[in-house]
Amino acid sequence: MRILGIDPGLQTTGFGVVDVDGHSLSYVASGTISTRHIGKGQLPTRLKVLFDGIGEINERYKPDAAAVEIVFVNVNPQSTLLLGQARGACLTALVACNLSVAEYTALQMKQAVAGHGSAAKAQVQEMVKRLLRLPGVPGSDAADALGIAITHAHVGSSMARLETAAMLEKGLAGRYRQGRTR
Amino acid sequence: MRILGIDPGLQTTGFGVVDVDGHSLSYVASGTISTRHIGKGQLPTRLKVLFDGIGEINERYKPDAAAVEIVFVNVNPQSTLLLGQARGACLTALVACNLSVAEYTALQMKQAVAGHGSAAKAQVQEMVKRLLRLPGVPGSDAADALGIAITHAHVGSSMARLETAAMLEKGLAGRYRQGRTR
Repeated sequence: MRILGIDPGLQTTGFGVVDVDGHSLSYVASGTISTRHIGKGQLPTRLKVLFDGIGEINERYKPDAAAVEIVFVNVNPQSTLLLGQARGACLTALVACNLSVAEYTALQMKQAVAGHGSAAKAQVQEMVKRLLRLPGVPGSDAADALGIAITHAHVGSSMARLETAAMLEKGLAGRYRQGRTR
Repeated sequence: MRILGIDPGLQTTGFGVVDVDGHSLSYVASGTISTRHIGKGQLPTRLKVLFDGIGEINERYKPDAAAVEIVFVNVNPQSTLLLGQARGACLTALVACNLSVAEYTALQMKQAVAGHGSAAKAQVQEMVKRLLRLPGVPGSDAADALGIAITHAHVGSSMARLETAAMLEKGLAGRYRQGRTR
């Protein structure tokens, strides 16, 4: 399964594409979509760059699923509003591509990638490099996006294990009930 | 020119379509896009409903331009973030339809429609009804969206007047300079 991870931001949105086959992860692509060349007053134009950028990434890498970092409220409410609009544009672009979208917090991503939720940015970058056997550390935004894709891959395999366990349990419970009613 | 006005919201997004010909305004359509039937946890699905809804309105009424209400920060930062994401989805849907998007505050809309920025919701609804010669008052969200479209129509004709004035001034200044240099 191919997963597209997104770390949304108004100025810079990170993306990372990862293939997962059982427990094996492999790197496909990563980078950023930048809107820094567009004036601050032109919000609709900036959101269009994010929408078109995600559309192009989807066209090129054809992911099977997407995962997006859950952003947090900023001390500055105006920044919260701007970040919310950028994240809204990213989510909209993904659902417009008919991708299913999972959401994870930075804490969940750090736990999945570095083993603890208080990992620093550099630790996330280093662990993403190791997990995907990259020649160098990815940039911070791309590393976060790859981390989100890795988190979804981990959760996916955990969910599959849970489903198998649930099926086994159901089977056993079924047999147990049969045993009782017989 | 046909203008699509949008009053963005996560649960209910109002829309209003107005034709403007010089100073004459006429009503085309209005209503709401609701995401109330979708669970609160399913933000991507809700944003897809907004995106698809605006796409359908664009297909059906083929507006020439769009205008969107500028939303404000809420006392609850989490609500600000959610509203920001809904507005981001609306803006993204409009730019994805290749519409130019203007933005106005509620204050600017109230001034344009009711003559003063402190107009109550009911006054806006009543004035929209009068300005568009509607048989009854539109719902609050639809009235706000129609108000935003009317604001853009007013600004458009004011801009045209300003441009004419600027051209006249430029022409006079040109003649004045010619007079001086001769």
